[in-house]
Amino acid sequence: MHDDDMSYAVRAMRQSQPLVHCLTNMVAAPLSANALLAAGASPAMVDNPHEARATAAAADAVLINLGTPQEETVEAMREAVAGALDAGTPWVLDPIGAGTLPWRSEVALELLELGSPAIIRGNASEILGLAGGEGGRGVDSRHRAEDVMDEAARLATRYGTVVAVSGEVDHLTDGEEIVRLANGSPLLTQVSGAGCALGALMAACAASGAGPLAAAAAGTAMLTVAADRAAEGARGPGSFAAALLDQLALLSPETLAGEVRRS
Amino acid sequence: MHDDDMSYAVRAMRQSQPLVHCLTNMVAAPLSANALLAAGASPAMVDNPHEARATAAAADAVLINLGTPQEETVEAMREAVAGALDAGTPWVLDPIGAGTLPWRSEVALELLELGSPAIIRGNASEILGLAGGEGGRGVDSRHRAEDVMDEAARLATRYGTVVAVSGEVDHLTDGEEIVRLANGSPLLTQVSGAGCALGALMAACAASGAGPLAAAAAGTAMLTVAADRAAEGARGPGSFAAALLDQLALLSPETLAGEVRRS
Amino acid sequence: MHDDDMSYAVRAMRQSQPLVHCLTNMVAAPLSANALLAAGASPAMVDNPHEARATAAAADAVLINLGTPQEETVEAMREAVAGALDAGTPWVLDPIGAGTLPWRSEVALELLELGSPAIIRGNASEILGLAGGEGGRGVDSRHRAEDVMDEAARLATRYGTVVAVSGEVDHLTDGEEIVRLANGSPLLTQVSGAGCALGALMAACAASGAGPLAAAAAGTAMLTVAADRAAEGARGPGSFAAALLDQLALLSPETLAGEVRRS
Repeated sequence: MHDDDMSYAVRAMRQSQPLVHCLTNMVAAPLSANALLAAGASPAMVDNPHEARATAAAADAVLINLGTPQEETVEAMREAVAGALDAGTPWVLDPIGAGTLPWRSEVALELLELGSPAIIRGNASEILGLAGGEGGRGVDSRHRAEDVMDEAARLATRYGTVVAVSGEVDHLTDGEEIVRLANGSPLLTQVSGAGCALGALMAACAASGAGPLAAAAAGTAMLTVAADRAAEGARGPGSFAAALLDQLALLSPETLAGEVRRS
Repeated sequence: MHDDDMSYAVRAMRQSQPLVHCLTNMVAAPLSANALLAAGASPAMVDNPHEARATAAAADAVLINLGTPQEETVEAMREAVAGALDAGTPWVLDPIGAGTLPWRSEVALELLELGSPAIIRGNASEILGLAGGEGGRGVDSRHRAEDVMDEAARLATRYGTVVAVSGEVDHLTDGEEIVRLANGSPLLTQVSGAGCALGALMAACAASGAGPLAAAAAGTAMLTVAADRAAEGARGPGSFAAALLDQLALLSPETLAGEVRRS
Repeated sequence: MHDDDMSYAVRAMRQSQPLVHCLTNMVAAPLSANALLAAGASPAMVDNPHEARATAAAADAVLINLGTPQEETVEAMREAVAGALDAGTPWVLDPIGAGTLPWRSEVALELLELGSPAIIRGNASEILGLAGGEGGRGVDSRHRAEDVMDEAARLATRYGTVVAVSGEVDHLTDGEEIVRLANGSPLLTQVSGAGCALGALMAACAASGAGPLAAAAAGTAMLTVAADRAAEGARGPGSFAAALLDQLALLSPETLAGEVRRS
């Protein structure tokens, strides 16, 4: 993937203001919606089974986040994935807690069997868990991204998808190429739902028509370059979270291209 | 409506600290509760069918927001509206996504058939959708408030209610008079749930004993004048959202009266 | 309780980064998760019946908050309490609205019958309601902490627990000793979910191995000393809420020990 592909994805996203249908968790919902708005996309947070299929079919991208699943929202997720697949809408899976929590692990695999997402995003433990290994403790990761890239690549190949593993250095792979992005602040780990917002931004970029690897990289670069800038004046996680939204809105594709660090 | 009626509604709300029963969506719930607290009201976020009727009957105002309805919360909404009507408590309907999403459109109409709300608040597409026209895309509006005021007036007359249409210039009507308020910042459109918080503030003002048109105007003026002031020092939507709550708390009825712009 | 016990609880919590399983309400979930992260703990917000028991058993502490209960989350709460009791994991009950709202009052008592929590946290009206008296209006308290300490002590003795009553002066009792802590800002009452975050912090401190009275005091001291410092530069509740998270992260056990005020 060239840096140009990433810049293209961001620029195209900004111009098209994609409608991103989010089925996400109750902790991350406000930050995810605000991150999408700040980045220039438009969130639709419809998570009931009656309306999820039509919303997904009408949206430009769909995000499925398994943070706080309930029977009714899981049913809505099934509908949304079906609607996205029918309409050719790219969808992103964020399998929070996969590998640790059996019920949602099954749900994640069931959704993957419906058809391939454009991107699977998680931390190292979740990716390992989804690939069949042992997961983490809670939502934190006890593995590093670089240590699970064999499993990530196999997962990417099995489902024909891009797997994005968050970590100190973010690792993204389509099963062949590995993209490593090294921006971001430790403060991101102190903001609940920052990873979930990242999944939402990837979905927004996946709507741009750029390939999924470029979209995953573009979303990652947006959040982490904004985080670099937000961390500069922050006193702690509260002021950082507000500044992160400010910086997402201020970020130009040119700034992004100049500040993103591949490693 | 005289400006004095609007000032009266704000002053009476501040003095009585009304209990506002909110059945709202998972994205907007934190901001709505915080906006009510900042403005001097007291939120009660009870959205289960067991307790909604009694809570609505005991509250000073009820807000029904259809952002992320589920079977159980919709049942709670039915109970809350029934409880509000029994007790003579004013209620406000925010029909997010009406006209676009069939299930919630039916729910909105079903609630309206139970009895009239004091205020219906939405963007132009939602008001058009509720009045029987074609709605918007997601939760954004693709119509302007000024273009749907005939439909808004018919809706107001049909249900004996006030219809408040948010837009660059906010338009409010009781079916006869149209009030136009021109404060507010574009940053409001980048804060998820700002419109939902507006519905909550209208409900708080409707509890004041002022008429519903004055209450809708008072809620609108509070949010948009606070937004004008918050936008001054804001770097983007994150710092703006925090400043918006600060300014809601700092706002005096006198400042409001001096800065509100009718057009 | 000695001040040293409180400092020990904070220091031990910081070192062990406890996993706190929160079953809480949709308004307070983001702030509670962020407060835990800022304070150095790790939140797991799993509130479905399929996964709640195993999560509670694997966690270091469990928080049950009755702010917006639904059938499915209440079932998850039963599972979580059972899992916590089986595993010897301390759990904290925050009975929002108890005494005012009959359904959740029954749920609270049913959970208490499963086995004793380490701590029950509420405002004066909720504690009175849970002890069998008349509750409050909405989620606000119309009683003062100091006026309900007889009932609090009886409740503590009945269930072999610590009862923490929030107020202008926070009162905590294990049925024998009463600890009074006098930090905190009126701005805390203007931030929705601040009390819920306090319950989460108490749960984090209860995981430290300190006794429950010290844990309740440590959680209270953390939130209220951070609030004192956050209030200094705040313009209103929005900037205060961000600063509160900053200060929670900045707070050292030494600062806490130096600034906590017992009365």
